[in-house]
Amino acid sequence: MQTQNEPIQLYYWPTPNGWKISIMLEELGVPYEVRYVNIGAGDQFKPEFLAIAPNNRMPAIIDPEGPGGPISVFESGAILQYLGRKFGKFYPSDERARVAVEEWLFWQVGGLGPMAGQAHHFRNYAPEKIAYGIDRYTNEVNRLYGVMNKRLQENRYLGGEYSIADMAAIGWVKPYKDQGQDIEDFPNLKRWFEELMARPAVAKGLEVGKAEREKLNLAANKDAQSVLFGQRARA
Amino acid sequence: MQTQNEPIQLYYWPTPNGWKISIMLEELGVPYEVRYVNIGAGDQFKPEFLAIAPNNRMPAIIDPEGPGGPISVFESGAILQYLGRKFGKFYPSDERARVAVEEWLFWQVGGLGPMAGQAHHFRNYAPEKIAYGIDRYTNEVNRLYGVMNKRLQENRYLGGEYSIADMAAIGWVKPYKDQGQDIEDFPNLKRWFEELMARPAVAKGLEVGKAEREKLNLAANKDAQSVLFGQRARA
Repeated sequence: MQTQNEPIQLYYWPTPNGWKISIMLEELGVPYEVRYVNIGAGDQFKPEFLAIAPNNRMPAIIDPEGPGGPISVFESGAILQYLGRKFGKFYPSDERARVAVEEWLFWQVGGLGPMAGQAHHFRNYAPEKIAYGIDRYTNEVNRLYGVMNKRLQENRYLGGEYSIADMAAIGWVKPYKDQGQDIEDFPNLKRWFEELMARPAVAKGLEVGKAEREKLNLAANKDAQSVLFGQRARA
Repeated sequence: MQTQNEPIQLYYWPTPNGWKISIMLEELGVPYEVRYVNIGAGDQFKPEFLAIAPNNRMPAIIDPEGPGGPISVFESGAILQYLGRKFGKFYPSDERARVAVEEWLFWQVGGLGPMAGQAHHFRNYAPEKIAYGIDRYTNEVNRLYGVMNKRLQENRYLGGEYSIADMAAIGWVKPYKDQGQDIEDFPNLKRWFEELMARPAVAKGLEVGKAEREKLNLAANKDAQSVLFGQRARA
């Protein structure tokens, strides 16, 4: 595997999207430094962060040993592909195997992630309880769990071998109770979930910044919510 | 460019996600055949479709001339990367350029697409007018348009050169009025939008299946809506 001398800088907050990258870096075993982006305090709007993450969202990385010089990468899916290619791990170079990983990576990024995120919002954060929104996203997450469960009946991991697709999905399944789901309804998903949670690198990745997250306590923190929700285009 | 003798089979319905692939195939100029997946009539639940698209969503492709034999691919982002690699176009192999394309491709798949989709739903399809949902997603799309506008102030295209990232985004900007946005507020986005809409391959890709879409008329079709909305996991 390619060596890494200078640590990769990880711009991070402990959320399902942030965990994707802390898990991947732990799995790779390469040196990295965490730069906390406290999204409830508005750190994501600081100009120095915007310069590497134009969507004002973490995670992002700076790799001081990028191709031909330092490189920054934003978007969790793009970071996973970059790191997988660089270190030649968890993202196959055989084309058929690579496509299988990409199918499930995009499925997580475009489906499970945003829809579970909306379920979290309507169930836990929205200032009013809106039954239509709660039902819509609880049902959609239920459908998506069914898709994963079927896939994991036929395959040990989402993309074939253990890969960046699994690392992308695990953090979005961890809060299944917040999404109104009962993991007992999805036995293959449960088997996969327990296997992944028992991996030392996954456990370690999920621990990064846990204390900071508990300090912020977004569900009870109206100031942080007002920073996060209802943004429009900035002048 | 690699030749393609047997046509690629495109499982498709004319929506922003379907258009990504019809546009890409038109840009590549390779032979393809459209298999309509009438999502309002439930075609996406047929077993033969499920076999290639386990998420029950179009688009998907079968390439009879895949690596080592026929290959199926689902998820629009994965299809774009597969086709871009196969034909060596619109998806650079230089690592820095490739990362820039991937950043904006994932940004579209994980952000603009799902959030604009929710704006469409709450503004046009939901059986009740829910102000909180309408505002939430109209505001988020507004924020995302602002991010694109800023990017396109500094770059002619989202990913640097014209790429699969632009093809992924254009179909989600086309219905900007349905998302409650005024494109005049975003002059760089408008410039990009008009340039892309004037490309013959984009125009042709957006025309594929237009008559079928008008026949279905989802906004007025309660039967089709009941097929599409409120699904849960299938036994």
